[in-house]
Amino acid sequence: MNDRYDVVGIGNALVDVLARVEDEFLAENGIEKGIMTLIDTARATELYGRMGPAIEISGGSGANTIAGLAMLGSRAAYVGKVKDDQLGAIFAHDIRALGATFETPMATGDHDFDTGRCMVLVSPDGERSMNTYLGVSEHLSPSDIDESMMERADWLYLEGYRFDGPDSVGAFARAVAACKRGGGRASVTLSDPFCVDRHRDAFRRMIRDDLDLLFANEHEVMSLYQTSSLEAALDACAKDVRLAAVTVGPKGAWVIEDGKRALVPTPPVQVVDATGAGDLFAAGFLHGLARGRAPKICARMGCVAAAEIISHIGARPEVDLKALMAKNGM
Amino acid sequence: MNDRYDVVGIGNALVDVLARVEDEFLAENGIEKGIMTLIDTARATELYGRMGPAIEISGGSGANTIAGLAMLGSRAAYVGKVKDDQLGAIFAHDIRALGATFETPMATGDHDFDTGRCMVLVSPDGERSMNTYLGVSEHLSPSDIDESMMERADWLYLEGYRFDGPDSVGAFARAVAACKRGGGRASVTLSDPFCVDRHRDAFRRMIRDDLDLLFANEHEVMSLYQTSSLEAALDACAKDVRLAAVTVGPKGAWVIEDGKRALVPTPPVQVVDATGAGDLFAAGFLHGLARGRAPKICARMGCVAAAEIISHIGARPEVDLKALMAKNGM
Repeated sequence: MNDRYDVVGIGNALVDVLARVEDEFLAENGIEKGIMTLIDTARATELYGRMGPAIEISGGSGANTIAGLAMLGSRAAYVGKVKDDQLGAIFAHDIRALGATFETPMATGDHDFDTGRCMVLVSPDGERSMNTYLGVSEHLSPSDIDESMMERADWLYLEGYRFDGPDSVGAFARAVAACKRGGGRASVTLSDPFCVDRHRDAFRRMIRDDLDLLFANEHEVMSLYQTSSLEAALDACAKDVRLAAVTVGPKGAWVIEDGKRALVPTPPVQVVDATGAGDLFAAGFLHGLARGRAPKICARMGCVAAAEIISHIGARPEVDLKALMAKNGM
Repeated sequence: MNDRYDVVGIGNALVDVLARVEDEFLAENGIEKGIMTLIDTARATELYGRMGPAIEISGGSGANTIAGLAMLGSRAAYVGKVKDDQLGAIFAHDIRALGATFETPMATGDHDFDTGRCMVLVSPDGERSMNTYLGVSEHLSPSDIDESMMERADWLYLEGYRFDGPDSVGAFARAVAACKRGGGRASVTLSDPFCVDRHRDAFRRMIRDDLDLLFANEHEVMSLYQTSSLEAALDACAKDVRLAAVTVGPKGAWVIEDGKRALVPTPPVQVVDATGAGDLFAAGFLHGLARGRAPKICARMGCVAAAEIISHIGARPEVDLKALMAKNGM
């Protein structure tokens, strides 16, 4: 019996609080459009009080990727910290209901922080601006890493956002070491250009020394190598890592493999809500790798999954992803 | 200054937990399609564990009506019981964010029951089957009724579901008396044919003695008068109450006024999720009354609002209802 996982993801376990807003709301409240901003409890309370009615959907960048992988039929597990409160129960239910393993111990009632949440403000053009209250998700520590699970991971998937937190670097190091010991490979997603700013040295060291696969978008990879030229960033990236996938919005994704690169186009789609595009790209890509597909085919699978997620509100798929892949010949 | 309310609603304050299911899921779990079933904690836990990933949206039948009224521009207030937990905070935020007044004291941390929730299982044909864990919403008591608010209500709107609960009849009686004292009028919605079964005598007495307006659908009104003939039920209804609106699904709604009745057709629409159709019909109807419109015009406004809500997932409107009414010439 195969008790290995195709992919184990580690990230910030969050519940998304999604609302439509006009661009004026962003301006009036000093919210930078299209990026993720970390906020504290006071700011979260203030902003929530001002925003309109919302819907709640399980989120978290890495968790969205694992949810997509589970829907595609990969054996997937997720590691992230929630509290045993109502939002924590919702998060745990939703990811398990898709068939993913989720066994990270929940923080108990006396913990200072609640389950984290991300206020996702969706503009009329489909762009999303995220304000994240990390809550207990920030307190994932090395002791939450189950080494025997990591040893059984064919691929480890690290969410860049999770670099924000006192014990996160230690937790990641422990996970990567165990994964490698078990014969697995490790990948990371850069998550956000400002996240890259906060942790550039740690990212570059990890990518060069420990990682087999890098996920990023054009802004993140240019931030990583501190250049305003995508060409220069892709060249630098090709020197640092054997395999990389760099998404470039509606143009698709660059795949870099052993120093060579190719652009894979994405299917055309009307953007309703861009939330989760990168997360589902990674899900499709990793699912392809787990099935032994060539990286360019994996990128096409990533683009198909990303196109589904941006066609509706929320970062968890609404259709049968397996059927969608089959329909697209993959 | 006008400090009166157009409509004050009283009901079960619930958060909806919405998931798509196949009809087989209903059969396997013994869930009766299309109706509302009250469940206890154990059954709620069991069912939630079996159902797929969900999204959370503020709900509650009467609260959906008040949300619709607030969006339409009516001065609206809501009375219902939540706890000061995460789901309670979500409920309170969402209804206030629409401009409705919501001041019912929240139950505090040591209360035995949490904020109530309704698991809404949406079948491929758009029909919804509801399993409700009432939680603290069942414990709305006469002491939660602010008489000075009721005295300022032009219309009181009572949710039939709220008859399920030890102190509910007393709370309703207190509210109706205060509303009448202030010169207002009172309405009720029958909510569900099985709810009518549970409280038929109380409903009939109240409708005959205290109410100015009755909302029901065809199944509920036939249950009320214990007849399998809609004709007979409408005739009986015309004798009991001066004004009534009885919805008949895609055919529209019967309006009964001073013993005479007329059928008002509804715009054609593709049903995605029937949740909230009756709630939003009542919102459109009451908004029309508050604007001094004739009952047949009010019924058209109800049909337009109901058509919006069944065209998408969830029982809270997704578009600007004011603009929608204007587009439909009302």
